[in-house]
Amino acid sequence: MGNTRIEHDALGEVAVSAERLWGAQTQRSLENFVIGRRNYVWGRAVIRAFGILKKATAQANLALGQLPEATTSLIIAAAQEVIDGKWDGEFPLVVFQTGSGTQSNMNANEVIANRAIQMAGGVLGSKTPINPNDDVNRGQSSNDTFPTVMHIAAVEALHGALFPAVRRLAGVLAAKAADYAGVVMTGRTHLQDATPITLGQVISGWQAQLVAALEGIEATLPGLYELAIGGTAVGTGLNAHPDFGSKVAEFVARETGHPFRTAPNKFAALSAHDALVSASGAVRVLAGAAMKIANDVRWYASGPRTGIGELLIPENEPGSSIMPGKINPTQCEALTQVAVQVFGLDHAIAFAGSQGNFQLNVFKPVMLHDFLDASTLLAEALESFITHCAEGIEPARAKITEHLENNLMLVTALNPHIGYEKAAKVALKAHHEGLTLRQAALALGVVTPEQFETWVNPEAMTKPLPC
Amino acid sequence: MGNTRIEHDALGEVAVSAERLWGAQTQRSLENFVIGRRNYVWGRAVIRAFGILKKATAQANLALGQLPEATTSLIIAAAQEVIDGKWDGEFPLVVFQTGSGTQSNMNANEVIANRAIQMAGGVLGSKTPINPNDDVNRGQSSNDTFPTVMHIAAVEALHGALFPAVRRLAGVLAAKAADYAGVVMTGRTHLQDATPITLGQVISGWQAQLVAALEGIEATLPGLYELAIGGTAVGTGLNAHPDFGSKVAEFVARETGHPFRTAPNKFAALSAHDALVSASGAVRVLAGAAMKIANDVRWYASGPRTGIGELLIPENEPGSSIMPGKINPTQCEALTQVAVQVFGLDHAIAFAGSQGNFQLNVFKPVMLHDFLDASTLLAEALESFITHCAEGIEPARAKITEHLENNLMLVTALNPHIGYEKAAKVALKAHHEGLTLRQAALALGVVTPEQFETWVNPEAMTKPLPC
Amino acid sequence: MGNTRIEHDALGEVAVSAERLWGAQTQRSLENFVIGRRNYVWGRAVIRAFGILKKATAQANLALGQLPEATTSLIIAAAQEVIDGKWDGEFPLVVFQTGSGTQSNMNANEVIANRAIQMAGGVLGSKTPINPNDDVNRGQSSNDTFPTVMHIAAVEALHGALFPAVRRLAGVLAAKAADYAGVVMTGRTHLQDATPITLGQVISGWQAQLVAALEGIEATLPGLYELAIGGTAVGTGLNAHPDFGSKVAEFVARETGHPFRTAPNKFAALSAHDALVSASGAVRVLAGAAMKIANDVRWYASGPRTGIGELLIPENEPGSSIMPGKINPTQCEALTQVAVQVFGLDHAIAFAGSQGNFQLNVFKPVMLHDFLDASTLLAEALESFITHCAEGIEPARAKITEHLENNLMLVTALNPHIGYEKAAKVALKAHHEGLTLRQAALALGVVTPEQFETWVNPEAMTKPLPC
Amino acid sequence: MGNTRIEHDALGEVAVSAERLWGAQTQRSLENFVIGRRNYVWGRAVIRAFGILKKATAQANLALGQLPEATTSLIIAAAQEVIDGKWDGEFPLVVFQTGSGTQSNMNANEVIANRAIQMAGGVLGSKTPINPNDDVNRGQSSNDTFPTVMHIAAVEALHGALFPAVRRLAGVLAAKAADYAGVVMTGRTHLQDATPITLGQVISGWQAQLVAALEGIEATLPGLYELAIGGTAVGTGLNAHPDFGSKVAEFVARETGHPFRTAPNKFAALSAHDALVSASGAVRVLAGAAMKIANDVRWYASGPRTGIGELLIPENEPGSSIMPGKINPTQCEALTQVAVQVFGLDHAIAFAGSQGNFQLNVFKPVMLHDFLDASTLLAEALESFITHCAEGIEPARAKITEHLENNLMLVTALNPHIGYEKAAKVALKAHHEGLTLRQAALALGVVTPEQFETWVNPEAMTKPLPC
Repeated sequence: MGNTRIEHDALGEVAVSAERLWGAQTQRSLENFVIGRRNYVWGRAVIRAFGILKKATAQANLALGQLPEATTSLIIAAAQEVIDGKWDGEFPLVVFQTGSGTQSNMNANEVIANRAIQMAGGVLGSKTPINPNDDVNRGQSSNDTFPTVMHIAAVEALHGALFPAVRRLAGVLAAKAADYAGVVMTGRTHLQDATPITLGQVISGWQAQLVAALEGIEATLPGLYELAIGGTAVGTGLNAHPDFGSKVAEFVARETGHPFRTAPNKFAALSAHDALVSASGAVRVLAGAAMKIANDVRWYASGPRTGIGELLIPENEPGSSIMPGKINPTQCEALTQVAVQVFGLDHAIAFAGSQGNFQLNVFKPVMLHDFLDASTLLAEALESFITHCAEGIEPARAKITEHLENNLMLVTALNPHIGYEKAAKVALKAHHEGLTLRQAALALGVVTPEQFETWVNPEAMTKPLPC
Repeated sequence: MGNTRIEHDALGEVAVSAERLWGAQTQRSLENFVIGRRNYVWGRAVIRAFGILKKATAQANLALGQLPEATTSLIIAAAQEVIDGKWDGEFPLVVFQTGSGTQSNMNANEVIANRAIQMAGGVLGSKTPINPNDDVNRGQSSNDTFPTVMHIAAVEALHGALFPAVRRLAGVLAAKAADYAGVVMTGRTHLQDATPITLGQVISGWQAQLVAALEGIEATLPGLYELAIGGTAVGTGLNAHPDFGSKVAEFVARETGHPFRTAPNKFAALSAHDALVSASGAVRVLAGAAMKIANDVRWYASGPRTGIGELLIPENEPGSSIMPGKINPTQCEALTQVAVQVFGLDHAIAFAGSQGNFQLNVFKPVMLHDFLDASTLLAEALESFITHCAEGIEPARAKITEHLENNLMLVTALNPHIGYEKAAKVALKAHHEGLTLRQAALALGVVTPEQFETWVNPEAMTKPLPC
Repeated sequence: MGNTRIEHDALGEVAVSAERLWGAQTQRSLENFVIGRRNYVWGRAVIRAFGILKKATAQANLALGQLPEATTSLIIAAAQEVIDGKWDGEFPLVVFQTGSGTQSNMNANEVIANRAIQMAGGVLGSKTPINPNDDVNRGQSSNDTFPTVMHIAAVEALHGALFPAVRRLAGVLAAKAADYAGVVMTGRTHLQDATPITLGQVISGWQAQLVAALEGIEATLPGLYELAIGGTAVGTGLNAHPDFGSKVAEFVARETGHPFRTAPNKFAALSAHDALVSASGAVRVLAGAAMKIANDVRWYASGPRTGIGELLIPENEPGSSIMPGKINPTQCEALTQVAVQVFGLDHAIAFAGSQGNFQLNVFKPVMLHDFLDASTLLAEALESFITHCAEGIEPARAKITEHLENNLMLVTALNPHIGYEKAAKVALKAHHEGLTLRQAALALGVVTPEQFETWVNPEAMTKPLPC
Repeated sequence: MGNTRIEHDALGEVAVSAERLWGAQTQRSLENFVIGRRNYVWGRAVIRAFGILKKATAQANLALGQLPEATTSLIIAAAQEVIDGKWDGEFPLVVFQTGSGTQSNMNANEVIANRAIQMAGGVLGSKTPINPNDDVNRGQSSNDTFPTVMHIAAVEALHGALFPAVRRLAGVLAAKAADYAGVVMTGRTHLQDATPITLGQVISGWQAQLVAALEGIEATLPGLYELAIGGTAVGTGLNAHPDFGSKVAEFVARETGHPFRTAPNKFAALSAHDALVSASGAVRVLAGAAMKIANDVRWYASGPRTGIGELLIPENEPGSSIMPGKINPTQCEALTQVAVQVFGLDHAIAFAGSQGNFQLNVFKPVMLHDFLDASTLLAEALESFITHCAEGIEPARAKITEHLENNLMLVTALNPHIGYEKAAKVALKAHHEGLTLRQAALALGVVTPEQFETWVNPEAMTKPLPC
C-alpha cells in the first residue's frame, strides 16, 4: 500500500494509504467487501448526489445554528468539489456492502472531512478542525442520508438522461408519422394479414406508447421528490433540529433545480423505498414499450428478400462473420437486450423493496444501483437507437404496395354491404384457391365489379366510416 | 351432450347443446382449448364487463343511427341480463384461448344474440332477428372490444374491492397509531437495537406506505380510463362510425360511474396494454408494502417467550397439529403469500405486455386474468388481515418496557454532549461486559449520574432536538 | 348452515354443518381465510396426495407398533377413499391460509378421522374411536406432512401429465422432422435471410429443445423424491419413531410407483423447498422452449399473403369478429400465454422459496399451488397444441421454393472459393440493385456461370463441407 | 484519436487508432453502441474464452487440413496471448451490441489476426498473412462461436469460483455443525417458539441446502459442456469440415480440463440457450438458499439486548454513523443483496432465453453477461461471508439457555403421555397466565412432578422417540 497513515474509528485503528482522503470506515469496507469490484463500484451519479446532500446539510446546519460558519464553509467547499467530480477516485466502495449504505455515507463524510481539513491546512485523519461524524454528518444518520441520495441520484438520472432520450425518440417518431401519413400498408394482427393501416398510423402508435410511458414515469416523480433526510436513525429525527429535514430539502432543491421536499413520514422513508419501486415499475413499462417498438421495426425490416421487408433501416456494420453482405437490425437487438436487462433489474428492485424490517430496509445500495443502471442503460440504448436506426427508417414502398394489393383482409370493407358471413366466404375462397379477392368475390356473385371497386378502397379503409 | 342444435359460423356447422345460449364459435373454443378448465374459466368481473360494453355499443349504435331501435333495444335488454349475472353459466371459456380474446367476444355476441332472439320469440341459432356479428358486434372487433373489457373490469376491480380494502386498513392503522402514540419502544435497524421510537410512529409508517401505494395505483387510473373501442380491427376504426369510440366510452362511463373516455391513440391501445402493466406495477408496490407490514407484525409478535414479543395479535386457531397450544401469525402468512403471488402475476403481466407485434398484442386474456386475480386476491387478503389480525393488534407493554430499558442505543442521546466516539466507547463497554449503559457511562467517567438522567430520556429520543 | 354439530379443538367449540366430515380446524380456516375462494380451493392432486400420505403413515405406524391394527385399518380404509376421490367436497380450504399448510393437514386428519368413525359406526366429531391428532396425525406434524404432500403431488403431476405431453410433442416433431428432411428452405438469423436449412433440421431443433428440457426436469426429480416426513415439528423427529420417515417413504413409493425415500436432512426439508424451486426452474426452461417453438410456428405460418408463409397450420376457428375469413394461429397464442404464466408462477415460487426463517418456510401452500398450476397448464397447453396444431403442420412448398430462390445469402457458398470480402460485394450489389445473386456475381466477374451453378447449391448448403 | 490507420470491412473503410490491434468491425461497434460503457465492457472471462476457442479452432483447422501450419501456428500463438490476458485492453466492446455477439467475435478475429500479423512482421490491418474472416474465423460463424464462448466462460466461472466458494462454506458449516451438536436451543416455526433443536442440527440444515444447491447446478453442467461450434451460420455446418465441431470441442476440453463435447443438435444450440437458462435457474436456487441462511444468521444474531440474540457474529466495522457502538450483520446484508441481484439477473436470462426466432436467439450477449455476473457476485459474496462472518459464528450460550428454559413448546413432549388436547390446555394456561410450563401442568393436575421431570427433557426432544 506504500506510505500509510493511521485512521481510527470506534472499533480502533486502520492503516490507510497516506495520499487517500478516505478514512477508517471506508478502508474497512474496502477490505471487508471484495464483491463486484470490477463493475459495481459506485459511479458519478451517486458521488455527485452525496456531494449535493453534504453541501445542503452543511448549509442547513448553518442556517439552523447547529454548526458554526467556519465549519460549514469548509464542508461546503469540500462538498462542492465532490459535486464537481474532483474526488471520484476517493470513492472506491462497491454496491454490496452494509445494506443501509452506511459505509458509503461514511466514505463521503471522511472524504469531505479530510478534504476540508486539507483546505484548512490540517492533518489528514486528525478529524480537526472537521470531524466526519460530528460535523459532516451533523444531524444525520446513514439511514436518512442514503435514501436521500437514492432519490437525488434517481431524479437526476431520469431528468438528465432518460427523459430527454424518450422525448427525442418521440419527436423523431412524430416527424416520421407525419411524413408517412399517406403510406397505406397491410395491417397485421395475430401476425396475419389484416385490414389496411398507414405507416403514419403505425408509427403514431409507437410514439403514443412512448409518451404514455414517459407520463407514467413522471407520475412517480412526486414520491421521488420526497427526501428522508431529517429522520436520522429510525425516522424520529433524534439529534436533528426539527426543521433540518425541510431545510436540507430546500437547499437540495435549489442546487438541483428539482422540487425536492421533506418526506411527510420519515418512518416509511427509511424502512421502505416504495417510491423507487414505483418509479422502477414505470421504467419497466417504458422498457416494454421499447421492446415492442424495436421488435416491430426489425420485423418490418425483415428480409431483405424473404421476410416482411416493408421498412428500410440503416446499414451500420457487416452483420455476419460468415455470411457476406448480411445486414442485421443490430440497434433493435441492443435495445431489446437492454429492455430485458431493465426487466431483470426491476425485478431485483421490487424484490429488495419488499424486504424491509422494522425501521430499516437494508437493500438500499442494490436498489439504488439497479435503478440507475436501468435508467442509464435505457437512456443510452434509446439514444443509440435514435441515431443509428430510428432516424433512418424509411418505407420500402414497392414491397408495401405489392403486399397491400395481395391482402385478402381488404374483404372487411364488404361487411357493411354484404354481411360478415358472405364476406368470409369470399376471403376463404380466395385463400384456398389462390385467387385475388376480386376474382373470388365476382366468382361467388356477391358483388358487381363496380361495387368491388367502390367498396374495396384500401386508403378509405384506414379511416372510420364516413359520416 | 344430450339434445343439440346446429349453429354455424364462417367455417361451417357446429353442434351445440340445445339449451345453451352460446353458438358455434364458443363451442369451437370450448373444444379446442381444454387448458386450465379447473380454475381459469372467466368469472363475474369479465362477464359483467362484456355486458356493460355490449349494452353501451348498442346504445351508441342507436344514437349514431347505425342500428335500428328494435335491434338495439333487444340487445340492450339481453346485455343487461348479462350485466346482472343471469347468464354466467353461458360463459364457459377459459383464459388460454386466442390471444385477442376473440372467442370470448364472440361468446358475448352469441349469448346476447341468442338471448335477444329468445326474448323476441325467435329460434336459437337462427341469427334472426339478431346477428351476433352484424348486430351485437356492430362497429366492433375483438381487437378493440377485448381491451375495452380489460379496462372496464380492471377499473371496477380496483374501485370495487382493492381500494376499499386499502383504505380500510389505512384507517385501522391510523386509529392504532393514534392510540399508541405514547408507547415508547425499541427502534430496530439492521435487526439490531436502535434508538427509541413510539409504536404510534411505527404504525404511522405502515399507514404511510399504504396511502402512498394507493396513490400510486390511482395515478395509473387515467390510462385505464382510456378505452380502445372505436379502433375496430387494427386501430383505424374501419367500419365504425367516427364518433363510435367516444360515444361508447360515454355510455360505459354512465353505466359504471367512472370517467372512461376514448383512447387518443387506438393503434397503441390494440397493440399494447401498457396502462394495465403500469397499474400492475403499482399494485405490486402495494403488495411489497403489505409484505413489509405483515412481516413486521409477525416479527413484533414473535415469541411468545423467546422472540421479540412486543405485539399481541389475535389467536384465531390452533397453530400446530403436533405442538399443543401453539398460536401462529397465520393472517400475516396468508397476506405475504398473496404478496408473493401478486409479484408472480405482475411478472407475467409485464412479460406479456412486452410481446405485442404490429397491430396487436395477443396476450390479452392472460394479462386481464392475472390483473384481476392479483387485485382480487390482494383485496381479499387485506380484508382478512384487517378483520382477523390488524384490528386486534395490541402492544405487549411489559415486554416493550423491559426491552426499552435494556437498549444500549439509548447512548445515541449522548452524541451531542460527549461526541460520537466517546459515546461509542460507552456502548461497546456495556455490550462486551454485560453492563447497563448507565454503569458503563459512569465507569468511563464521561458523564455524571445527573447528566445521564437528564440526557438519556427514551421518550424525548422519539423526537427531534428541541428548538 | 342448516343442521350443525359441535366440533371442538384446543381453542374451543366450533359449529360445523352436520353432514360434513370436516372438523373444528377446517371450519375455522374456512371462516378465517376468505381469500381466492373462486379459483384457489385445493383440487384433486393435493387431496389425493394427502390420502396417500395418511394411508402410508397409518401403515407405518402399524408396522412400527405405534398404533393398533384396529385403528390403522380404519384410517387406511378412510384414506383410501380420499385417494379415490370420494370426499373431494370435504376439502373446502383455499391455498392462502397458514403458511405451513397446517389447516389442510388438519382438514385431512379431520375428514379421515370422521370418515373412519363413520365406518366404525361412531358419532361424527366424537374423536372416538379415531382421534384426528393422536391417531391420524400420529408421529406427524404439519411441518413434515405438508412438504411431503408437496413432493408427492408434484411428482405425480410431472409423471402423470407433463412428461407424457412433452414426450408426445417430441414424438410428433420427430416424425415431422423425418418427413420434411428433404424440404430445403431459407434459414433466418436476426430475422434476416440466411443460408439454407431443411425444414427437417428446423423441426429437429425444436424437438431437441423439448428433449433437453424434459431431461432438465427429470434431473430435478431426485430432490422431489426426498420426503420430509419423519421430521415432525422442527426436523428432529420428536414424537416419531426413528424409522417412521423411511417406513412412510417406503409405503408412499409402493402406492405411487415412484422411488420416494426419506430426506437425508429434515431440517432443510422443513425450512426450505429448494427441490421444488429447482423443479420449477426446470419447468420454466420448458416454458421458454415452448415459447420459442410456438413463436417460430406462428411466424413461419404468418401471412397468408404478406408474411413469411412457409408453414401451413390447421384452421380451427374463425379468427376475427370483424375480418371475415381470417384464420389465426390461436394454439400458438394459447401456448405462449401459458408459457408467460409459467414464468410468473415460477417467479412466485422462487421468491417464496427464499423466504424461510429458522425451522420453517411458511410459503408452502402458494409454492405447491403454483407448481401444480404451472405443470398442469403447460401439460394441457402442450396437448392442445399437439392435437390442434402441431400434428397438422405442413410446408407451404411453393412459397418455400420462391423464397429460397430469392435468398441472397446463398452467396455464403462462395466464401471458400472467392473469400468473404468478394462474396460480400456480390451480395451487397444484388441487394442494392435488386439483382439476383447470379446476376451480381457475373457482373462483378468473380465467378463464371459454371462455377456459380456448381458452387451455389442450396441443398448442398444444408450440410457441412464434403470431406 | 491521435494517429490512425485505415482498416476496412465489407461496408468500407474505418479509421482506427494506429496502435490498436482491433479492426474495422470492432471500431464500428465501438462507435455505434455507446451503451453501458461504464460497467458493461466485457471482462477477462469472456476474452479468455474467446482466446481458448480461437486457439482450438486453429488447432482443429490444422488437424483437419483446412488451414496450413504456418497460418495456424501464428493464430495459435496470438490466441495464447489472448488467453493469457496480454491483450484485454484490445477488447473494448460492450455487452449491448448485435445480439449474436458478431462484433465481439470479430473483435477476437481482428485482434488475433493483427497480433499474428505483428508477430509475422506484417502490417496491421493488411489482413496479410492472416485474414480475420478467412483464417481466424475459418469454418466458423458468430452464430456458433459466441454460444461456444458462452458455455466455455460459464463452465469456467462455475468451476473456478462459484463451486469452490460453495464447497468452502459447506465445509465451514459442517465443522460448526459438529462443534455445536450438543447445544440445545429453542426451535422456531412461524417465528414462534417451537420444540427444541440443537444448533448443530440448525447448521446442518444450512449445509444440506448448500450441498443440494451445488448438486443442482452440477446437474446442469452436461448441457453447458455441449458446444455449438461446428454449426456455423444456421446450424447446418455450412463451410465447415464435418468433423470440425467435435475436433474443436476436443481441443477446448484439453485446454480447459472440462469434458466439453460437440452439441448433438446445432439448430437448438444456435437458436436457444436453454442450457444456460437451466444453469441460471439452478444458481438461483443457491441464491435462495444463501438468502435463507443469511437471514437466519442475522435474525439469530439480532439484538444484542432486545432481539433473538442466540448467535454471536464478528464485529467488523462500526455499524452506524449516528448510533455509537452499533454493530450490524453487514456480511449477511451484502449476501442477501447479492441474492436479490442474482434473482434479477436470472429473470433477465430466462426472459432473453425465450425470445429466439427461427435459427437464432439474438439475446446472447446479455445472457452471457448476466450469467457471469450472477455467478461471480455470488462466489465473491459467499467468500466474503465465509471469511468475515461464517467462520466466526458462535453460540450465545447464556441467552440460548434462558430461552430454552422459557419455551412453552416443551409441552409437546407430553403428547404421547397425556394426548394433544390436554397438553394444549397446559400450554395455553401457561401462556395466558404467565406461568412456567411446570406450574401450569401441575396446576391442571395432568402430570405429577416426577412425570414432568422425566418426560420434559429438552435434549431428548431433539431426537425421535427411543425405540
